[in-house]
Amino acid sequence: MLKGIFPPITTPFVNDEIAFDKLTENISRWNKTDLAGYVVMGSNGESAFLTRDEKLKLIENVKKNSDKGKILIAGTGSDSIKETISLTNEAAEKGADYALVLTPSFFKEKMNSNSFVKYFTEVADKIDIPLIIYNVPKFTGVNIEAASAAKLSEHKNIIGLKNSSENVAHLSEIINNSSDDFVTLVGTASILYTGLCAGAAGGVLALANIAPNECIEIFNLFNEGKLKQARELQAKMIPVNKAITGKYGVAGLKSSMDILGYFGGEPRSPLNMLSENEIKDLKAILTKAELL
Amino acid sequence: MLKGIFPPITTPFVNDEIAFDKLTENISRWNKTDLAGYVVMGSNGESAFLTRDEKLKLIENVKKNSDKGKILIAGTGSDSIKETISLTNEAAEKGADYALVLTPSFFKEKMNSNSFVKYFTEVADKIDIPLIIYNVPKFTGVNIEAASAAKLSEHKNIIGLKNSSENVAHLSEIINNSSDDFVTLVGTASILYTGLCAGAAGGVLALANIAPNECIEIFNLFNEGKLKQARELQAKMIPVNKAITGKYGVAGLKSSMDILGYFGGEPRSPLNMLSENEIKDLKAILTKAELL
Amino acid sequence: MLKGIFPPITTPFVNDEIAFDKLTENISRWNKTDLAGYVVMGSNGESAFLTRDEKLKLIENVKKNSDKGKILIAGTGSDSIKETISLTNEAAEKGADYALVLTPSFFKEKMNSNSFVKYFTEVADKIDIPLIIYNVPKFTGVNIEAASAAKLSEHKNIIGLKNSSENVAHLSEIINNSSDDFVTLVGTASILYTGLCAGAAGGVLALANIAPNECIEIFNLFNEGKLKQARELQAKMIPVNKAITGKYGVAGLKSSMDILGYFGGEPRSPLNMLSENEIKDLKAILTKAELL
Amino acid sequence: MLKGIFPPITTPFVNDEIAFDKLTENISRWNKTDLAGYVVMGSNGESAFLTRDEKLKLIENVKKNSDKGKILIAGTGSDSIKETISLTNEAAEKGADYALVLTPSFFKEKMNSNSFVKYFTEVADKIDIPLIIYNVPKFTGVNIEAASAAKLSEHKNIIGLKNSSENVAHLSEIINNSSDDFVTLVGTASILYTGLCAGAAGGVLALANIAPNECIEIFNLFNEGKLKQARELQAKMIPVNKAITGKYGVAGLKSSMDILGYFGGEPRSPLNMLSENEIKDLKAILTKAELL
Repeated sequence: MLKGIFPPITTPFVNDEIAFDKLTENISRWNKTDLAGYVVMGSNGESAFLTRDEKLKLIENVKKNSDKGKILIAGTGSDSIKETISLTNEAAEKGADYALVLTPSFFKEKMNSNSFVKYFTEVADKIDIPLIIYNVPKFTGVNIEAASAAKLSEHKNIIGLKNSSENVAHLSEIINNSSDDFVTLVGTASILYTGLCAGAAGGVLALANIAPNECIEIFNLFNEGKLKQARELQAKMIPVNKAITGKYGVAGLKSSMDILGYFGGEPRSPLNMLSENEIKDLKAILTKAELL
Repeated sequence: MLKGIFPPITTPFVNDEIAFDKLTENISRWNKTDLAGYVVMGSNGESAFLTRDEKLKLIENVKKNSDKGKILIAGTGSDSIKETISLTNEAAEKGADYALVLTPSFFKEKMNSNSFVKYFTEVADKIDIPLIIYNVPKFTGVNIEAASAAKLSEHKNIIGLKNSSENVAHLSEIINNSSDDFVTLVGTASILYTGLCAGAAGGVLALANIAPNECIEIFNLFNEGKLKQARELQAKMIPVNKAITGKYGVAGLKSSMDILGYFGGEPRSPLNMLSENEIKDLKAILTKAELL
Repeated sequence: MLKGIFPPITTPFVNDEIAFDKLTENISRWNKTDLAGYVVMGSNGESAFLTRDEKLKLIENVKKNSDKGKILIAGTGSDSIKETISLTNEAAEKGADYALVLTPSFFKEKMNSNSFVKYFTEVADKIDIPLIIYNVPKFTGVNIEAASAAKLSEHKNIIGLKNSSENVAHLSEIINNSSDDFVTLVGTASILYTGLCAGAAGGVLALANIAPNECIEIFNLFNEGKLKQARELQAKMIPVNKAITGKYGVAGLKSSMDILGYFGGEPRSPLNMLSENEIKDLKAILTKAELL
Repeated sequence: MLKGIFPPITTPFVNDEIAFDKLTENISRWNKTDLAGYVVMGSNGESAFLTRDEKLKLIENVKKNSDKGKILIAGTGSDSIKETISLTNEAAEKGADYALVLTPSFFKEKMNSNSFVKYFTEVADKIDIPLIIYNVPKFTGVNIEAASAAKLSEHKNIIGLKNSSENVAHLSEIINNSSDDFVTLVGTASILYTGLCAGAAGGVLALANIAPNECIEIFNLFNEGKLKQARELQAKMIPVNKAITGKYGVAGLKSSMDILGYFGGEPRSPLNMLSENEIKDLKAILTKAELL
């Protein structure tokens, strides 16, 4: 069963092309940590900006460079069921262990419980690796209900859900109502500690790109019953997480990687690099959190 | 310092007039519990539908009927600073111990940090009892930032904040950034347990109108370090809370009170009573949660 | 029947008190135009910041200073039906000809068609002057459906609706479905011309505080079939309207009044005065529109 | 220059595969009207559910079956600039005359003016056919500002914008600020008439799939200065448009096509077919509008 901390790894670009050498460097550094594995082609991997070919090469490359024992999760979902199935199965051939599949969202108002259950059932029925539902309202504008997640948790090929909202009541409901072996993962580091309190199995956290050990420590402290320390470390991480997922987004995450010795680089257009003042602000935030 | 569980008590109406005798009955029952006190004229008290005279009579009546030791918090805020100060000071004369003051919200887009700090400072400067900020985005359409709450927490007459969103990251941030003696209260029972994990001092909970002992037990279990039991009881309460604050709202809360032996009665117009089918659904929810 | 252009007049303050002398000056200037009348205690009148006493004095004062033939509309609505009826009837005694009544909005999710029909029917049944529904989603967070407006248009004491969204499809639907003598007024100057094309009878326009003649001219040009000229003048006014209703809001409207020789003054706290740079920007916008 | 009425044609499926024969039948019927051309792979074409191969085959097929003189516009946009350029150029080879390119929207909060200008400039620089910006907030959750559209209107390969919101003020602003040869198209039939009043050149209208002649008549009546008749016909069409774009969406549009003798068929999963009751309701709406 999945548990622990996974970074949705960023995709490094040089001259607008994927820089596989830089990726290899980042992975070799992450390999030395207790990260449970990697998510490629998540939101922070700028999956939205990648072509199909680039996606498949990415998986292949990350698979090759990951330490044994690191789990590989690939973001393969889109509104098209046909394309999602096809891409997932190719991803599986390239080495993906699990598929992280976005809720369909184009026809927002029509995406009711029925639609979500249909979509994920049809996809899960035809893919060769287990499916993790990916719920991220701030990017999709839709939100899967706990009751739908509960229903889907009974499908033998749907093994978990990543929930990237900060609504812990919703997370609790999903956990309370899903089948016992269903894995609920926190999708943003700001609620890692409270999500674990609510029963989450771990997290897929942008923050884990730059602060893997801190995320792992919150996870371990919680599991050792050291709530106070877990909460304190969590408190220290919230401003950093807010900067790299809210205020500055992917560009901020990549700049933080550059600041902290990883390769971050530029996000793809139309996202913008941070300005010098923004980088200064980011450094101050990282320093205050004792990451720099 | 404030801590523990407070119900924002409902206002009973008979023939569209406040039924003070029914209110007295409800309070005498709540007096027997370990509730820390009462909130009158909260959202669930249908404050929005009361005249000024009715509000003052309510405070007077609840004060008279509350057991010694029960704290009395009155919802006295409106967009008008002048009216908020005047109503708060009359409320204080009638016996209110604390004022729960809504964020101003009419000019939503203009309600930035600056406006919130100005508003609460000007009110707190001129009222005779301590102020608790009341942040409830689902009714106001605005959300006070953690940084503004932190700044306001330094005002000697602003002693706490009730946060009625389910965003625990936001709650955590407020707790992390505010002064040490600032009291943060959870504003909805669905995050009571995780809010306590995050450091909240207690809660002002619609659910405490009908399940005071369960709310108190979650609070106590958490404080005794019995996380598992706290989480399980919390899980049982979430569907009830969802019914009385989300799906059915105040009308559902009042119907639940009727079902459970309190006096609930009708909400004021234009809210609608529940239909028979809805009451049946509510009974099933209460039964499943072992409240009925 | 109501038709033509009405400014929702601003409330002048000096040292945070209503400056009736300044109000008189503004009115005497507006009296010289073809404005159909005045709206007191609209959103731009900062009704949300006024006490009950101040409201009644305002009506009295505007009534006294308005030219014969100018219609007086007073904003008297709040979520409380009881208070709305009581305030409206006192407003009528002080000289208000019509009541502009906000949609109830505190319990947003419960404000369905049924609630709106109940609310306005109960109010209209008991007030001494005709009622105009006031729909302004950006401030209330709720939106009355065309079907509800149509139903209410059959009540003999509900004579019209002011619609302050920029959704002309919604406006068209209201006009198409309401009874023949129902008056639909555009609530923002950015859609004055297209609203008239859709069949609106006129407008209650913040812009009419500072550009009454331009608003009246758009109205007249349209009625004379001079569409091209109407559209051109409309185009010139949109940036001004955007500044005083969107970007800068009431503070911007008041600053514009000061710039153009009316008395604007400060908005009440917690709204903020414009900065010098913002005033400079506003002057450029007014100059480009040939108002300055 | 583009003008007139374009239907964003639906994609017929039989057993979940594109039914090219049915498509041919529909087109041959539309060819007999004065429709200015066709949009393939618009929102109503369920572009979100199509694979890349299916998209290219669609264009080829529609091109082959369209009458000479009918313009072919293909929806080719996605968040990925690389993929948008590549797909557009292949679409051009297959016969597309114009590319309708969605605003990027995955990273909603980062999609500011700067991002939109960058995105459309980079795409327009490298595609072989002229670009039409496609702004549809209800599906994307983002909204391009008039100032950005104005700036982009100066690019020689960006020739127009389809605006699918009902905010006519926004439409007016785009028209007022863009270069003289920039074509602004209404994107929903509910504001066809008022959009024409505001200066739009025509519309890309779901309604034109089932009521091409009525849409064309509104366009013609307006151009002949017969405002009253245009407005009356518009009023008749609003309920139909609301049903097929709002309440029932694509499934409703397709059912309407079946009812009216076109081939509609099922939408692709996870969209749901209409129930029998919904079809009955739809028939009543079509009958009332005299389309049936």
